[in-house]
Amino acid sequence: MSKAVKLAIVGLGNRGHGMLGSPIIPMAKEGEVEIVAVCDLLQDRVDDVKQIVTDNGLPTPFGTTKLAELLAIEEIEAVYIAVSWEAHVSVAVAAMEAGKYVGLEAGGAYDLEDCYRLVRTYERTGSELMLMENCCYGKRELMMLNMVRKGVFGDVVHCNGAYCHDLRTEIIAGKEIKHYRLRNYLLRNGENYPTHEIGPIAKLLDINNGNRFVSITSVASCAKSMHQYVVDTKGADHPLAQVDFKQGDVITTLLTCAGGQTVCITLDTTRPRAYSRRFEVLGTKATYLEDNDSLFIDGNEEHRKHEWAIWDKMWGNAKEYEEEYLHSLWKDGVGNDMHGGIDHLVFAAFITAVRDGLHPPIDVYDAATYMAITVLSEQSVAHGGMPIPFPDFTAGRWTIRADIADNAYTLDRLDKHDLYHADSAY
Amino acid sequence: MSKAVKLAIVGLGNRGHGMLGSPIIPMAKEGEVEIVAVCDLLQDRVDDVKQIVTDNGLPTPFGTTKLAELLAIEEIEAVYIAVSWEAHVSVAVAAMEAGKYVGLEAGGAYDLEDCYRLVRTYERTGSELMLMENCCYGKRELMMLNMVRKGVFGDVVHCNGAYCHDLRTEIIAGKEIKHYRLRNYLLRNGENYPTHEIGPIAKLLDINNGNRFVSITSVASCAKSMHQYVVDTKGADHPLAQVDFKQGDVITTLLTCAGGQTVCITLDTTRPRAYSRRFEVLGTKATYLEDNDSLFIDGNEEHRKHEWAIWDKMWGNAKEYEEEYLHSLWKDGVGNDMHGGIDHLVFAAFITAVRDGLHPPIDVYDAATYMAITVLSEQSVAHGGMPIPFPDFTAGRWTIRADIADNAYTLDRLDKHDLYHADSAY
Repeated sequence: MSKAVKLAIVGLGNRGHGMLGSPIIPMAKEGEVEIVAVCDLLQDRVDDVKQIVTDNGLPTPFGTTKLAELLAIEEIEAVYIAVSWEAHVSVAVAAMEAGKYVGLEAGGAYDLEDCYRLVRTYERTGSELMLMENCCYGKRELMMLNMVRKGVFGDVVHCNGAYCHDLRTEIIAGKEIKHYRLRNYLLRNGENYPTHEIGPIAKLLDINNGNRFVSITSVASCAKSMHQYVVDTKGADHPLAQVDFKQGDVITTLLTCAGGQTVCITLDTTRPRAYSRRFEVLGTKATYLEDNDSLFIDGNEEHRKHEWAIWDKMWGNAKEYEEEYLHSLWKDGVGNDMHGGIDHLVFAAFITAVRDGLHPPIDVYDAATYMAITVLSEQSVAHGGMPIPFPDFTAGRWTIRADIADNAYTLDRLDKHDLYHADSAY
Repeated sequence: MSKAVKLAIVGLGNRGHGMLGSPIIPMAKEGEVEIVAVCDLLQDRVDDVKQIVTDNGLPTPFGTTKLAELLAIEEIEAVYIAVSWEAHVSVAVAAMEAGKYVGLEAGGAYDLEDCYRLVRTYERTGSELMLMENCCYGKRELMMLNMVRKGVFGDVVHCNGAYCHDLRTEIIAGKEIKHYRLRNYLLRNGENYPTHEIGPIAKLLDINNGNRFVSITSVASCAKSMHQYVVDTKGADHPLAQVDFKQGDVITTLLTCAGGQTVCITLDTTRPRAYSRRFEVLGTKATYLEDNDSLFIDGNEEHRKHEWAIWDKMWGNAKEYEEEYLHSLWKDGVGNDMHGGIDHLVFAAFITAVRDGLHPPIDVYDAATYMAITVLSEQSVAHGGMPIPFPDFTAGRWTIRADIADNAYTLDRLDKHDLYHADSAY
């Protein structure tokens, strides 16, 4: 067995707590990681997590409410960050400055300069940052990536994605646990959680690796659902029934790419509905739609028969292609976690990258690009859907991504087609 | 039986021919219409259609290649127009000038002024125009309209729609039959066929009846699919393999409404896929998705169980609501035609309006609004997705739609909630 990666966890709220339970504690039991230290602003969370680790028969980690104390611990190699959205960048920058390999949870940015801060800190310190975007490791997302690489889709011309998740209960839940969502929904208006949608699409479209986003347009619907929900569940006299939620119920965002592709992503988090990331890949030779899990391949006579299959003729047929095209990461088994395996996969990729000194599969340029969508979306919404130019965080190196890999001040060993380094099959 | 409406048909290509077969000839046999005259630029089509009518035991209609000859026939009450897209407005205006009640087939406009021409001609002559948008009469479209009117969705905040139809064969087919599609795909780039998508959504959102579109943004993907298809099916030496198709493969268009709602429509007509209009209604209290025919209603415990139903738990459950919410037009039986009943419904609405002197359920303001989307989409695409202001063809009367109904120079008897006049149930 290889040496355990010495890990710190910063942010012990819902997400940090969940990841601790799985995959982190199981990986610690298997000797892949050692939980050296944990940190949260709230002492009770720190105490709680220390107890959980100890109860699992693992060495009790150092616990602190002070980030600097944790970052001063030299033996810590990797810092997994699951703090509030607003603290993501400052905590990540501090950890990189301390020479740690950062795993940063999903979330959008608040200002473009913060995205540049991540990039510049990486370029100056050489400390790597991986965006812990678990949806990049989704079963269908990886399968379609595999099929795109194998040419099944021909040229991909458009992708759709979404974060459709009824978060109403979470948004108005206890201020301690979910405070950051509530204040964001009260005060902001834009694509506040883009990375689940855009991560898998960006990988599939080679964003920052031969392609880049050129422009972005975003519109927001009216904000009626949260008020309705508060009135229905808490009554018209509840304090939250007296305030305006600025966040539109549905945010639709269009991106254009240097390669000519377009992308449409939707944020839909305040309404009654079933969860969906409605991942869709539209190519010159095939079409995949997640909402009915259908795969239509050009020239397939069976599919052609269902040309007018508005209803259920093709629904679910993507399953038939799993044997041939399921990504090797999924074929190998994915472990158990609260999100059906993807938390395990993203964390394993992170730990592997730290242990082996690899450039992360979702790197600081990707993180800056995906997180910038929130900022640019807010700007476009505020300007009535005006297209906003998309920054190039690679400063042109997306045209020859190997440039970044060869850069002397990075540890980069990225191969363009080795985005998921546990696999070289596609 | 009421007196037969004296009908002329202008445009005897694929669509005019299809509508003749059903519902027009069956309605003629039942004495609801009399096919008085037919017109096409091509004499062979005129002769062919005269023969078909005669072979069905009906009186032989007058046939001509000259529109003016047909419009000069005084007894003709109604003119159904199914000409090429480019001729829609000029033929419709000529027919209105001649005092005929016009039924105009689906298609987009080429210039905003043409949309105003339709409106001004109607306002000056009092000749009514109905847009023959059959998808407004779709089973799910009418059912959701019914449910929205009954409050099941709460406030609708966003709708999606699309025209996803693999038209590759038709686009490159014989120049005589489909010439207008080919030239449009070679030369233009935008949402060239918006009415199927936007018609049902506009009705549901009360567009021109208390609501209106305020702005529109459109982006086009690269155009790779037609070239691929020509090469694959005709070979790299085919003349169409030597030219550029300007029409992007996927056009995504965002509309904002005065009422705060947003709409996203997609044109996807050059790629391999199953047909879909992916009609979607997102409200504060319910969600309908056509692609898996699922209906999620707030407070429904059964639905709530499927909150994480990414896959098939809820697929097809909208059927369970048909008994309670199917629109009466569908409950009454819809007849047979090539589009599963909707051609019959739209034509019956048209003939009823003509016979009873009613303002049409999809009127000239609606026609101008829906058709303008093509023009505005092209403008936005050409400006890199710039939002374009949406004209108000009602000149402010959308705020009190009864104003139009009471207008002295119209025959208008429109009731805001009687859009589909065969029904007053919702």
